[in-house]
Amino acid sequence: MEFTVDQIAQMLGGKVKGKGGDKINMLAKIQDAKPGQIAFLANPKYEHYIYSSHASAIIVKKDFLAKKEIDSTLIFVDDPYLSFTKLLEEYHKLISFQKTGIEQPSFIGENCSVGKNIYRGAFSYIGNNVKIGDNVKIYPHVFLGDNVIVADNVILHSNVKLYSDTKIGVNCVIHSGSVIGSDGFGFAPQQDGTYKAIPQMGNVVIEANVTIGANTVIDCATLYGDSTIIRQGVKLDNLIQIAHNVEIGKNTVIAAQTGISGSTLVGENCVIAGQVGVAGHLKIANNTSVGGQTGVSKSIKEEGQRLFGNIAMDIKEYFRSYALFKKLPDINYRLRDLERKVFNISNVEDEESD
Amino acid sequence: MEFTVDQIAQMLGGKVKGKGGDKINMLAKIQDAKPGQIAFLANPKYEHYIYSSHASAIIVKKDFLAKKEIDSTLIFVDDPYLSFTKLLEEYHKLISFQKTGIEQPSFIGENCSVGKNIYRGAFSYIGNNVKIGDNVKIYPHVFLGDNVIVADNVILHSNVKLYSDTKIGVNCVIHSGSVIGSDGFGFAPQQDGTYKAIPQMGNVVIEANVTIGANTVIDCATLYGDSTIIRQGVKLDNLIQIAHNVEIGKNTVIAAQTGISGSTLVGENCVIAGQVGVAGHLKIANNTSVGGQTGVSKSIKEEGQRLFGNIAMDIKEYFRSYALFKKLPDINYRLRDLERKVFNISNVEDEESD
Amino acid sequence: MEFTVDQIAQMLGGKVKGKGGDKINMLAKIQDAKPGQIAFLANPKYEHYIYSSHASAIIVKKDFLAKKEIDSTLIFVDDPYLSFTKLLEEYHKLISFQKTGIEQPSFIGENCSVGKNIYRGAFSYIGNNVKIGDNVKIYPHVFLGDNVIVADNVILHSNVKLYSDTKIGVNCVIHSGSVIGSDGFGFAPQQDGTYKAIPQMGNVVIEANVTIGANTVIDCATLYGDSTIIRQGVKLDNLIQIAHNVEIGKNTVIAAQTGISGSTLVGENCVIAGQVGVAGHLKIANNTSVGGQTGVSKSIKEEGQRLFGNIAMDIKEYFRSYALFKKLPDINYRLRDLERKVFNISNVEDEESD
Repeated sequence: MEFTVDQIAQMLGGKVKGKGGDKINMLAKIQDAKPGQIAFLANPKYEHYIYSSHASAIIVKKDFLAKKEIDSTLIFVDDPYLSFTKLLEEYHKLISFQKTGIEQPSFIGENCSVGKNIYRGAFSYIGNNVKIGDNVKIYPHVFLGDNVIVADNVILHSNVKLYSDTKIGVNCVIHSGSVIGSDGFGFAPQQDGTYKAIPQMGNVVIEANVTIGANTVIDCATLYGDSTIIRQGVKLDNLIQIAHNVEIGKNTVIAAQTGISGSTLVGENCVIAGQVGVAGHLKIANNTSVGGQTGVSKSIKEEGQRLFGNIAMDIKEYFRSYALFKKLPDINYRLRDLERKVFNISNVEDEESD
Repeated sequence: MEFTVDQIAQMLGGKVKGKGGDKINMLAKIQDAKPGQIAFLANPKYEHYIYSSHASAIIVKKDFLAKKEIDSTLIFVDDPYLSFTKLLEEYHKLISFQKTGIEQPSFIGENCSVGKNIYRGAFSYIGNNVKIGDNVKIYPHVFLGDNVIVADNVILHSNVKLYSDTKIGVNCVIHSGSVIGSDGFGFAPQQDGTYKAIPQMGNVVIEANVTIGANTVIDCATLYGDSTIIRQGVKLDNLIQIAHNVEIGKNTVIAAQTGISGSTLVGENCVIAGQVGVAGHLKIANNTSVGGQTGVSKSIKEEGQRLFGNIAMDIKEYFRSYALFKKLPDINYRLRDLERKVFNISNVEDEESD
Repeated sequence: MEFTVDQIAQMLGGKVKGKGGDKINMLAKIQDAKPGQIAFLANPKYEHYIYSSHASAIIVKKDFLAKKEIDSTLIFVDDPYLSFTKLLEEYHKLISFQKTGIEQPSFIGENCSVGKNIYRGAFSYIGNNVKIGDNVKIYPHVFLGDNVIVADNVILHSNVKLYSDTKIGVNCVIHSGSVIGSDGFGFAPQQDGTYKAIPQMGNVVIEANVTIGANTVIDCATLYGDSTIIRQGVKLDNLIQIAHNVEIGKNTVIAAQTGISGSTLVGENCVIAGQVGVAGHLKIANNTSVGGQTGVSKSIKEEGQRLFGNIAMDIKEYFRSYALFKKLPDINYRLRDLERKVFNISNVEDEESD
């Protein structure tokens, strides 16, 4: 990236005070910025940094009034944080989408169709009958099984593994080591104590705008024609387990190391924290919020609840009970004290009655 | 797959009513099936689907009596669900074992022996002195370290990593991203606060008929000559942690994200749910059942127990205690009420005594 | 490895009684050792094994007095266990560092610098502008993104993935499948219920002497110029989640499947057990010890505490409360009994007062 301050101001719809011709090649925090870099000031409590900053340019609010002299050129905008975020995104696009073309050696099977402007890294493997859209980035060591469909603008980081028949929607990003479409964990117990694998023949469908972290696993559905489904806009963190036949509703967010057991349907716009366990064959209502390490063993029917605890309950009630859990030794002591007192009273009564 | 209805009926030992010569190329659910597909009806509550199904053939119970006209050809069998499962398995074998031969580029070291009818995918890596049996499927990006032994009929999905000296028994299936034989987590604390790695020189032995999910990790044993052992018939789900020197008894089933700490011996035919943590150096009796997210910190000596809770206890007792945990605010209130009443009574008594 | 007993004794500073010229090619446990192997006796309760051992040589304490005849040659040392550990380490070095050179095909980008005596396995991928020190071992299927820096003596096992800009210090070991530098889990909620990805542009810095297990994930920091930092001497087990902008203090040890949420600072010399969850934006004091499956939701300010429980508390207090949690049905029964008695007493009083 290299732009002049004027070019950046134009992009942001801002006004320049200072040297509009200076060149900017990097973004930085106001306290760290060096010449050639641009920073921003949004929170007034960081204002003192602006007077000693070495940034070539600093984005400030349009009504900002300097109390001392400032060396840096200023760009005045409506919302400095939003403007900086916009710059960040532009910069990120510039650096993250730079690779295109095919590195060798790479492998592609028969009867595949591949879109325009794609990157296929060295040692990437594409099976038979695979369809790949435009602007797709397939990093080194990615594996696409037979019949996989990958829509436009998808990024598959190094070592993503898509089993046969997996479908990935537009704009999805999947991070390294994630496995999509592995066999569901289905075994039929036999009379001799052994287990027989139930063939897992469905697939996984990931809709548009889904992001999946690193080393997460999503199992395929059991029956042919069925799918484990991740709806559009879902955001999954790292090391998550999604079992067979699960469906995650749109725009639901799930943090790291959480596990959703087989055939459970998670609603839309839920927020599920890390290390949560959800049992199988449940239905979780839309807008449910689940705290870290919670165990959900029953369906949640009412929307908008906030859950917590080993056996999920309302989070406020959990905290009330847990506060008393901590005081159980005291409660036990008080109870013993009462038992003694009541015993004494009864004895006195008995004696009096005698 | 393409068979006539007659051929399928013969395979299942069933009787055909309708067009035995029709061709079948796919299995489907009764409500979704199209011409050219076969479905089944086992549960009477789905019977209404049979009268509008587009399936070319439907497998039904031998005593099935139609209440209306049915377009599909019927195959009468003893147990429609079992028959359908049998077809599923046959179909699964047909589609999942189709690849054989060696894709290039792939890497194989010195002094290896490789059986008949195997598949070695592109970018698979085989070290030195490796022994591979017949009918083994080694998908792309698999890594086999030196001296690894893989028995007949094993399937190693893309990116399975077997460290040196690992042994895999017949008929095992290991899913993508699983790591077998990584170093055990053993460090000796030094006087300056640092830790020194204790060399981990044992290996991992996986016996016959074991299935391992995706992104699971099994560490090697510490001492040379020792093994972390997964006994025959064990089924491990995704993202499981098996530490060094652990032994999992035969036909035990462990669900996703559970962790077994070092040197613990898990018995046979146990069923361990997801996100369970088992501490180190324990012995878990045969037929133990452990609920989700349970923490097991003591050995389980009596067979057949059902455990649950942060510090594992009998599951029924846990639920009884947890029901009261939820009521702790009420218990606390009742206790305070009693304290007040007893205080009043005592005062009355004292006054009376005065 | 093949040494004479005399050579080994010299290495350990020990005295030989027996055949100093015998050749040793392997280490073993005293009860398992065969001719050609060396064992040790440290714990007196294993002494009976020494009289029937087939080991060619056995390391014993300098004041060891045999009660019966011993076939094996003895090496007398100050501390048999330490001596054996020293041998183990030497042996481990010999067998684990044997590979050097470049296997083909492998990929290396432009403008890289590579040190002396390194191993680059087949199918390993090195991006542009990468710097690699001396004696580094890069196993097959490793991925190094652009601008990665790997210092001397680092071992990257098969399939380690380092995103762009990651820095790895001297003597680090990273096991298979671990992902370093994936995007932090940062999304800004939009008014229409969708989420927009916040660009994650920082990196990960791993200092010297760090060991990382298999399939662990460490996310990069959010802002350009910021780093998620793992300080020197840290030991991380398998399947751990380290979120963006976390810092782990030096010599801290974390067991498998634990997750540390974004921006949390973990102190030095902490010991964190498995499946622990630590919430975001916390500060954990030095020397904190955290028990398995604990949920830490508040900063820990006082050093040296031992924590446990769903909502972390002092471990001894937790056990006291949990013991009473198990007795809640009994506590409830006692409470009800008291309520009845007090009710009766009150009635008597009332009657007496009447």
